[in-house]
Amino acid sequence: MPHYRVTLAYDGTDFAGWQAQAEDRGRTVQGVLEDALHRLCGGAPEAKVRVVAAGRTDAGVHALGQVACFRLHREWAPLDLVRALNGLLPADVRALEAAPTDDGFHARRSALSKVYRYTLDTVPVQLPTRRRYAAHAPFVLDRAKVKAAAELFLGRHDFASLASAGGSVKTTERTVLRSEVRWEDTTLVYEVEADGFLRKMVRSMVGALLAAGRGTHDLAALKGALGARDRRVWPPPAEARGLILVCVKYPVRGGEARL
Amino acid sequence: MPHYRVTLAYDGTDFAGWQAQAEDRGRTVQGVLEDALHRLCGGAPEAKVRVVAAGRTDAGVHALGQVACFRLHREWAPLDLVRALNGLLPADVRALEAAPTDDGFHARRSALSKVYRYTLDTVPVQLPTRRRYAAHAPFVLDRAKVKAAAELFLGRHDFASLASAGGSVKTTERTVLRSEVRWEDTTLVYEVEADGFLRKMVRSMVGALLAAGRGTHDLAALKGALGARDRRVWPPPAEARGLILVCVKYPVRGGEARL
Repeated sequence: MPHYRVTLAYDGTDFAGWQAQAEDRGRTVQGVLEDALHRLCGGAPEAKVRVVAAGRTDAGVHALGQVACFRLHREWAPLDLVRALNGLLPADVRALEAAPTDDGFHARRSALSKVYRYTLDTVPVQLPTRRRYAAHAPFVLDRAKVKAAAELFLGRHDFASLASAGGSVKTTERTVLRSEVRWEDTTLVYEVEADGFLRKMVRSMVGALLAAGRGTHDLAALKGALGARDRRVWPPPAEARGLILVCVKYPVRGGEARL
Repeated sequence: MPHYRVTLAYDGTDFAGWQAQAEDRGRTVQGVLEDALHRLCGGAPEAKVRVVAAGRTDAGVHALGQVACFRLHREWAPLDLVRALNGLLPADVRALEAAPTDDGFHARRSALSKVYRYTLDTVPVQLPTRRRYAAHAPFVLDRAKVKAAAELFLGRHDFASLASAGGSVKTTERTVLRSEVRWEDTTLVYEVEADGFLRKMVRSMVGALLAAGRGTHDLAALKGALGARDRRVWPPPAEARGLILVCVKYPVRGGEARL
């Protein structure tokens, strides 16, 4: 059966995350995508389509460039696949591009790295038009300390202290390729790229940036907490709404149809 | 009774506009603000507070710097007034600053000018995280023609062709002080400043920019339609979600308490 990958953007606000739950715990991006693909394939019970995503984003987390792969019962012209999907998906999920892909491709396992961005407004009163896509922490942050904390994550580390319970990973070691803070006026924008992320890892990173910037944890304390491999010693994770999956990088890329 | 003015920001998505309706036609910004002020004053029937705003924004239109004025039964420290209001207002409306103001101040009549911004994505598929605050028109626009159309509005004109029915204004003449288009990649950002705006005037301006850019109306046709003072000959108004009231300018300014 032909194998496809699609690039998706979504507003995570009204989703209980990416992953379809065994029990019905709410609307998921995987659920609405599988439903759209099922209808695309005629809606018969045997035409169910299972999708795999690069990143299983949590409830409230957004995406600009999530990648998912799946098999279809027949071939589709990529541009037609994108258009048909957008006709069947709800407005808060859009297919941006599609491409046939080889049998061995796996949206998560084939990924070289993923890029996440976290946006945090530090003004006393957050503008209502910002609150869906930026977190809010009305604190004066020491920018040098925030920067130093961000640099702490660079390279290969055991990130067990930053992992939320409930993950089922073999190893908690990950390699962080980029960990950069920039400021847009009083808004902190944090971008991080790694070969993989544990559950709530980015939000735990931002929790540490906040702790460092407010002075509740100094750099030595964060270093110690990272080494402890114990999530009970790590500052609490930042809220979901500020987080967006920017893109997923793969070894080869080409043949996508982009509207 | 002491007279105050507040600067408000709001997400217009879930509002039926600024103005409280005689009949109950939905949630309005004026309604939630008057309700918050009423509770601030103790909630007694005789403690009702009436507010006047600089711009009566339509349903779905947002604000970064709306200004409203009202009288209270006692004096308030401006910063306390801002904080108390934010404790009583819903999350999609925030008070940014407050100031005592002289008796003669009127949020709309005292205004020298207002600035509106309209944001329009022209990509084929709009990102879901953009759709609340940017309109979408998946067309290739001729940028030179869009710019020329924007310049048509500069100066004093009778804008009757751009006014929606239902307004109760004495004159449809207004002076446009600034009418500028800029592009952020494929997103059109239009900023317009005038001494006043008729109902749906900015959206009608953007409707004309789109018509010019798509080639359905040339500059001569738009000039003729402006001169005709007949809204039936004007291109249809652009959708509300792309519009935001940026700020209101007054002759004097000072004494505001900003959090």
